[in-house]
Amino acid sequence: MKILVTGGAGFIGSHLVDYLLNEGHSVVALDDLSLGRENNIAHNFSNGRFKFIKEDLLNIEKLYQIFEDENFDTVFHMAANSDIAQSHSNPNIDYERTFLTTYNTLLTMKKYCVKNLVFASTSAIYGDTSEKITEKYAPLFPVSHYGAAKLASEAFISSFAENYGLKIWITRFPNVVGERATHGVIFDFINRLKENPDKLIVLGNGMQYKPYLYVKDLVEAILFIWKNTNEKINFYNIGVESRTRVKEIAQMVIDEMHLSSVIEYTGGDRGWIGDVPEFNYNLDKIHALGWKAQTSSNEAVKKAIKYILDSHNN
Amino acid sequence: MKILVTGGAGFIGSHLVDYLLNEGHSVVALDDLSLGRENNIAHNFSNGRFKFIKEDLLNIEKLYQIFEDENFDTVFHMAANSDIAQSHSNPNIDYERTFLTTYNTLLTMKKYCVKNLVFASTSAIYGDTSEKITEKYAPLFPVSHYGAAKLASEAFISSFAENYGLKIWITRFPNVVGERATHGVIFDFINRLKENPDKLIVLGNGMQYKPYLYVKDLVEAILFIWKNTNEKINFYNIGVESRTRVKEIAQMVIDEMHLSSVIEYTGGDRGWIGDVPEFNYNLDKIHALGWKAQTSSNEAVKKAIKYILDSHNN
Repeated sequence: MKILVTGGAGFIGSHLVDYLLNEGHSVVALDDLSLGRENNIAHNFSNGRFKFIKEDLLNIEKLYQIFEDENFDTVFHMAANSDIAQSHSNPNIDYERTFLTTYNTLLTMKKYCVKNLVFASTSAIYGDTSEKITEKYAPLFPVSHYGAAKLASEAFISSFAENYGLKIWITRFPNVVGERATHGVIFDFINRLKENPDKLIVLGNGMQYKPYLYVKDLVEAILFIWKNTNEKINFYNIGVESRTRVKEIAQMVIDEMHLSSVIEYTGGDRGWIGDVPEFNYNLDKIHALGWKAQTSSNEAVKKAIKYILDSHNN
Repeated sequence: MKILVTGGAGFIGSHLVDYLLNEGHSVVALDDLSLGRENNIAHNFSNGRFKFIKEDLLNIEKLYQIFEDENFDTVFHMAANSDIAQSHSNPNIDYERTFLTTYNTLLTMKKYCVKNLVFASTSAIYGDTSEKITEKYAPLFPVSHYGAAKLASEAFISSFAENYGLKIWITRFPNVVGERATHGVIFDFINRLKENPDKLIVLGNGMQYKPYLYVKDLVEAILFIWKNTNEKINFYNIGVESRTRVKEIAQMVIDEMHLSSVIEYTGGDRGWIGDVPEFNYNLDKIHALGWKAQTSSNEAVKKAIKYILDSHNN
């Protein structure tokens, strides 16, 4: 199968490329390298079934040309702004890089009659709630522009599916950690401790309690859903049942760095505006389909810490 | 209070302007007159509390200037593409005129610290379902680009509310009919019968069964919600409990025109792709708040037919 992975040099996209190549598909990775890195895909450059194209999805004429040249069966649309916290001051980041990239992808799929779309959505579409979040949770009032832009993307994916006969797979997942991640709470803690090993300042009260999903588990789940469901619109929460508190992450980072730093909390129940302090993500639907995460939230965090420390020491 | 009504010369917006002026507010109606008409607001030109500005919301620099000049307390954002059926062939109509107009309004409200937004959303965000549609219905998979663009609008309205402290009122309503409407099924039937009084061709099987809400009931409901709720995010379905079948509308039009035309159905359960043939709209929340439509669906349709026939004869 000929597959396009947008954001294919990114954290999650590049792992997806590895899996798809491994399964024998031909893969084009498209990435503007604003957040993605050539390093993440360089090991595939010698593979005859792999091609990398450096391009921005906001440049729709170029996107048309790529679809004209290639003949895609399926698009995995992973490209987005992944740095959620920074968009508070500038909503245009998520409007352009998370929503408009999706809309342009849809317009191009329509123009070139590509009928299958696998989409990386997010638990952030559900907003800030302590209620049980199944795939049928409502109302949908996202608190971050990232969540808003992903919900806006889902909305047009749905209307394009209905109007032009696409088949779509919507996967909604929370925090993902592991090899090739480029930012997030673990990075922040390590960087702060490198600057000042005596004291770690943590935003909020440290009680934020979230599931951290291991990136390879995530990619396996996305592929599992794609292969094992066949509705017009397939939509699943993906996650891990266990959770980790921010204060635990802080301690794990300190331990792995062999420090004995003091942790200081800034207070309040969230790290930044738009952050959701605690949530209750329901995974019954994907468990019933036959998939479960293999790596616990704590293990995933530990793997992520080790990866960052190892790669910084190289 | 100083109020901006976007789409203020349009079908619904112009009625809203009348009510707001009547209640003593100062009102600026903004409209690009692509669907709105100067005729709808001309009777207010002599009112010192009224101002009309002809401008396109896609022109954000002009929008900034208007907010710079005026000092709005509240925005009623009614502007949108209202001709849902035509966007099948060109999704950009709803992307630009229904979604981007909202996004630009939000950016401008942020820039000028305007904190209150009343939004005209739609039952089309809920998609094609025969289940009971409360305000907590999910999943939200709209079938029309119009529904998608309104859901995308709600998503960013929500994240702007959270990030910049807006208070928002989201009103979701279905088909609206009455004075100053410019298109829709009643218009289509009248126009077809004027061309050929012997035969009326009806898209679908005529069994589509929908509530038609009278425009003055709608405007009263919007104002009722705005005045009587005070959450950060207030969201309500608005509608009328009774419904009317398309075949009944066809017969009412024929009767009012004093014809004895034959009705011919094209078949199929919907008029056009993206149409929702039947739906079960739940109004418990707004009824509990203390509002109920005064005009039945059939009465609303009859009023609308008479209005169109009368104004065409003038």
